[in-house]
Amino acid sequence: MNNARSESIEAYLAYVAGRVADELGTIVPEAWDVPAPLRESMAYSLLAGGKRLRPAFALAAAEAAGGDPEEALPAACAVELIHTYSLIHDDLPAMDDDDFRRGRPTNHKVFGEAMAILAGDALLTHAFHVLATMPDRFPRVSASAALRIVKELAAYAGAPGMVGGQAADMLGEQGETTLAQLEYIHLHKTSDLVVASLRAGAIVAGANEEQLESLAVYGRSIGLAFQIQDDILDLVGDASKLGKSTQSDVAQGKVTYPYLVGLAASKAKVEELTAAGKSAVSGGALPAPERLLQMADYLITREY
Amino acid sequence: MNNARSESIEAYLAYVAGRVADELGTIVPEAWDVPAPLRESMAYSLLAGGKRLRPAFALAAAEAAGGDPEEALPAACAVELIHTYSLIHDDLPAMDDDDFRRGRPTNHKVFGEAMAILAGDALLTHAFHVLATMPDRFPRVSASAALRIVKELAAYAGAPGMVGGQAADMLGEQGETTLAQLEYIHLHKTSDLVVASLRAGAIVAGANEEQLESLAVYGRSIGLAFQIQDDILDLVGDASKLGKSTQSDVAQGKVTYPYLVGLAASKAKVEELTAAGKSAVSGGALPAPERLLQMADYLITREY
Repeated sequence: MNNARSESIEAYLAYVAGRVADELGTIVPEAWDVPAPLRESMAYSLLAGGKRLRPAFALAAAEAAGGDPEEALPAACAVELIHTYSLIHDDLPAMDDDDFRRGRPTNHKVFGEAMAILAGDALLTHAFHVLATMPDRFPRVSASAALRIVKELAAYAGAPGMVGGQAADMLGEQGETTLAQLEYIHLHKTSDLVVASLRAGAIVAGANEEQLESLAVYGRSIGLAFQIQDDILDLVGDASKLGKSTQSDVAQGKVTYPYLVGLAASKAKVEELTAAGKSAVSGGALPAPERLLQMADYLITREY
Repeated sequence: MNNARSESIEAYLAYVAGRVADELGTIVPEAWDVPAPLRESMAYSLLAGGKRLRPAFALAAAEAAGGDPEEALPAACAVELIHTYSLIHDDLPAMDDDDFRRGRPTNHKVFGEAMAILAGDALLTHAFHVLATMPDRFPRVSASAALRIVKELAAYAGAPGMVGGQAADMLGEQGETTLAQLEYIHLHKTSDLVVASLRAGAIVAGANEEQLESLAVYGRSIGLAFQIQDDILDLVGDASKLGKSTQSDVAQGKVTYPYLVGLAASKAKVEELTAAGKSAVSGGALPAPERLLQMADYLITREY
């Protein structure tokens, strides 16, 4: 895997996205012995493109900890499998009821609700299969390391993590949302899987507890900054660059960070969180944090 | 754990069901830091009773392989978490659209569809967390053994297994179902998780490949026999003993084993599969297969 840290962050992310897409293609192969519509439904969402930011976090964390990012590729794919299942289920009529994602009809609009639910279940389940095969593929990855990633990912993606965040989001729509509740939702819906990605990549690389903790602080901050930035872009972004209409949160009466604290305070919060995240990984614990620093800057300067 | 194989199978199953229910209670504790409705939705279905047959298979397989069933308890609970999530999702309006299960309103009737989907997702995810904590709890269970169970359970429960079976079942309702398709559905919807339960218990007990293979043959046969027996009971069972109305398959126009091959041939098939399953585990590879033999007989003589 390309380690040249001098290349631009855009080039790096494009390279990672391509590499991850190739790898994900092998995970739902056409020759797979499963009912064809189920496989097609899984592949439709898994291979729909996207920035593959969570895999990039996993690979960059492996590099930051001094490991070989290539060995973190299965963990990166496992996280993307989980991210993809969560999007399919979140889009369902009973949840956010979205008809389009990334400019294409959502999974259930194409394959029906039953197949969308099952494709999500299958992608989630398969993430753990991919993790469990890591030692077979890379002898330097121990069964203990793989099992630790299983444990952490299950916690960060489950009821105490991402699913809990989505549940709080669903429940929040029924009443007033406070700033504390909104941060709970963002931290669990978004930051938790970012933290899991970073830690998974670093565990593969043999990171120690201090390194893992600094990555957790980074991921928590950057994940929250990313989500607030999303709220800001929805409010004031350029629709042509975003590829979707702006002010959809306002139209849906959704409680956002700018809605609660204003635009200026939201922007300041993004800056503050980004600085805190960068500081956590540049304190010396990690031998090669450059990519993570670039990614933090990239996420707050992005226009889409 | 009680090893007295002289007690009746009914007493054994009642003991296991109680032990597993206690253990499952600790898995979704009231003090858990997750949104309350999500935890309640998970606990509602997880602690709804049921025969806990899959956990019993896991514990009996551990005993059959000469191990300590107590150490197989987390694996038994993981399988039950997956079984429970599958029931919640299968009952959804987009799937089988069932309003009642075990005499109580289904999960989505009580907690709403969104929470039911999320509770299922969380239970599925948590199954892998429980497996990943096995070595912390039982030092004799190695990380390699736990990781192998993660890998096998993910395969048997995922797209090539249980989810694939449910997908085929959904798709089958759109057209003619052949005997081969019905067996595919039964083998994947039911047998796969039984096989996973047996193998998980035996892997904890340190079983060798020959032992695991004999358990797989047993589970495949017994799982299919169980499902055909279910079809038979729906057709000719005593509604008061079953606790649900009979002939619901006929009413729903569902294709069943008796519908395709007749009642006599279905009963003969159950006998034949049960004999094949018992033969697979009594060939000498397993030191203590008595419980598994009892369970096989119990499942075909049951009236509910």
